[in-house]
Amino acid sequence: MTTPTTPLFDTACFVGIGLIGSSLARAMRKHGLARRLVAFDISEKARTAAQALSVVDLATDQPADAVAGADLVVIGAPVGATDAVGAAIAPHLKPGAIVTDVGSVKLAVIRDLMPYIPEGVEFIPGHPIAGTEHSGPENGFAELFEGRWQILTPLPGCNEKAVDKIAELWRRVGSMVEIMDPHHHDKVLAITSHLPHLIAYTIVGTANDLEGHMQQEVIKFSASGFRDFTRIAASDPIMWRDVFLNNREAVLEVLQRFTEDLTALQRSIRWGEGEVLQKRFTETRAIRRAIIDAKQA
Amino acid sequence: MTTPTTPLFDTACFVGIGLIGSSLARAMRKHGLARRLVAFDISEKARTAAQALSVVDLATDQPADAVAGADLVVIGAPVGATDAVGAAIAPHLKPGAIVTDVGSVKLAVIRDLMPYIPEGVEFIPGHPIAGTEHSGPENGFAELFEGRWQILTPLPGCNEKAVDKIAELWRRVGSMVEIMDPHHHDKVLAITSHLPHLIAYTIVGTANDLEGHMQQEVIKFSASGFRDFTRIAASDPIMWRDVFLNNREAVLEVLQRFTEDLTALQRSIRWGEGEVLQKRFTETRAIRRAIIDAKQA
Repeated sequence: MTTPTTPLFDTACFVGIGLIGSSLARAMRKHGLARRLVAFDISEKARTAAQALSVVDLATDQPADAVAGADLVVIGAPVGATDAVGAAIAPHLKPGAIVTDVGSVKLAVIRDLMPYIPEGVEFIPGHPIAGTEHSGPENGFAELFEGRWQILTPLPGCNEKAVDKIAELWRRVGSMVEIMDPHHHDKVLAITSHLPHLIAYTIVGTANDLEGHMQQEVIKFSASGFRDFTRIAASDPIMWRDVFLNNREAVLEVLQRFTEDLTALQRSIRWGEGEVLQKRFTETRAIRRAIIDAKQA
Repeated sequence: MTTPTTPLFDTACFVGIGLIGSSLARAMRKHGLARRLVAFDISEKARTAAQALSVVDLATDQPADAVAGADLVVIGAPVGATDAVGAAIAPHLKPGAIVTDVGSVKLAVIRDLMPYIPEGVEFIPGHPIAGTEHSGPENGFAELFEGRWQILTPLPGCNEKAVDKIAELWRRVGSMVEIMDPHHHDKVLAITSHLPHLIAYTIVGTANDLEGHMQQEVIKFSASGFRDFTRIAASDPIMWRDVFLNNREAVLEVLQRFTEDLTALQRSIRWGEGEVLQKRFTETRAIRRAIIDAKQA
């Protein structure tokens, strides 16, 4: 269903056209939010797929060709590439353009990108709380952001009209928008996203290290709980490497809390403290109910 | 859809009519596998629901009334209640009856139940690799076991015809049957099921301990990974307490492996070892693909 609206932007440029970038491009196309969609990506595979699927009108490996005419630039690259992205796009950014990003950490992206943002260009950092375990432009879809939260972490003194315009973009693709301090963002996401992914990668890795025939049985009987972890442990390895390297302090802090809690439960199992286990396992049900009530299940 | 078949059993008695027991009762009714279905449960709520929903023909709190005429007895109680269940049902078991169970641990159930099994009655321990995070007879459904594995761990010297009959029961409700040594079962399930549940309970508990407003944000932004853990952390607390207390050695052993692996990743994050993280996160994708190929995703 296409809603006829006035385009918010003339040309939107996606720097990195992976799962998130291509989903936003599809959603912008569907809702008529830009007249022209272009992509700059260093991966030939991603460029070919994005163009073959008509996700964008042009996909190029030349930043000048992609960025020069754009009044919106959306960075959807692994956060560890932010410095390189900044250096590549900065000379071509047009005055009045708005730059935003979709990175899972915010302080490091701000630190790495801000030095490249010229006078007259606004950078509004953002993070859509949406995604799947699949990667690449072929796996994107226009409905990915519907009913999901979009966090924006604008810097003090930035142009408020630019913030409003980026917020409007996300609302038009179906998201709810939340404004947050970038430091707070990195702490919240360390617990809701980074720790769960680290734990999932670990447990699946532990199983992966088992002897061959035991590993086969883990796969066979995975429906008993294990498979739920394998889904998030199938997420993009480079993206996640960069998240952990760029949100180190917050991740190590929540990991410390988690390890303490796990050690306490381990001790309760060893000493047969049934009441402690039962109490702990009962408390966690309330959070599940709250997530269902918040329509985020 | 009811398939007209000769009933395998005359009267099937469910000792504990929760999620699993009521699902098997529904499946047996659907496929015409017993002439009469009865339940013994100490919970009035479960009895009332099971009878109101016609899951069984009779639900009683008197073991004699339920067990006396049954040629099949299915124990679906928390594994910590096995001793009490054995004492309650043993005097009423009829010669030639087959007893089976659906417990998530097998060595402890065999240890606790075998002393009560009289001469002329067969006990064939079992474990369906199926379930949901919901509890109680109102949440059961006949299709729960379709395409899932059923593990049987018969003891040396048991009646092979009884094993065949229980295997046939599970095949008729849609399961694939695997015969396994009970000791091996407890080791495999410690990694595929018990460890994942313990980890999920821990991470959700860690979030639950956060200060109030931080906790609200964890719920709000749970779609970024956390919510996948809350589903399994909403499983029945008493059932899981009993699993950990009754599979202690195997759980503590896999937990040790997991903790070593997590500590290694923690160290790689602290020291910025990107290659180690990327390698580890890439390996785990293969297991996900294998689970999808095995149709257990």
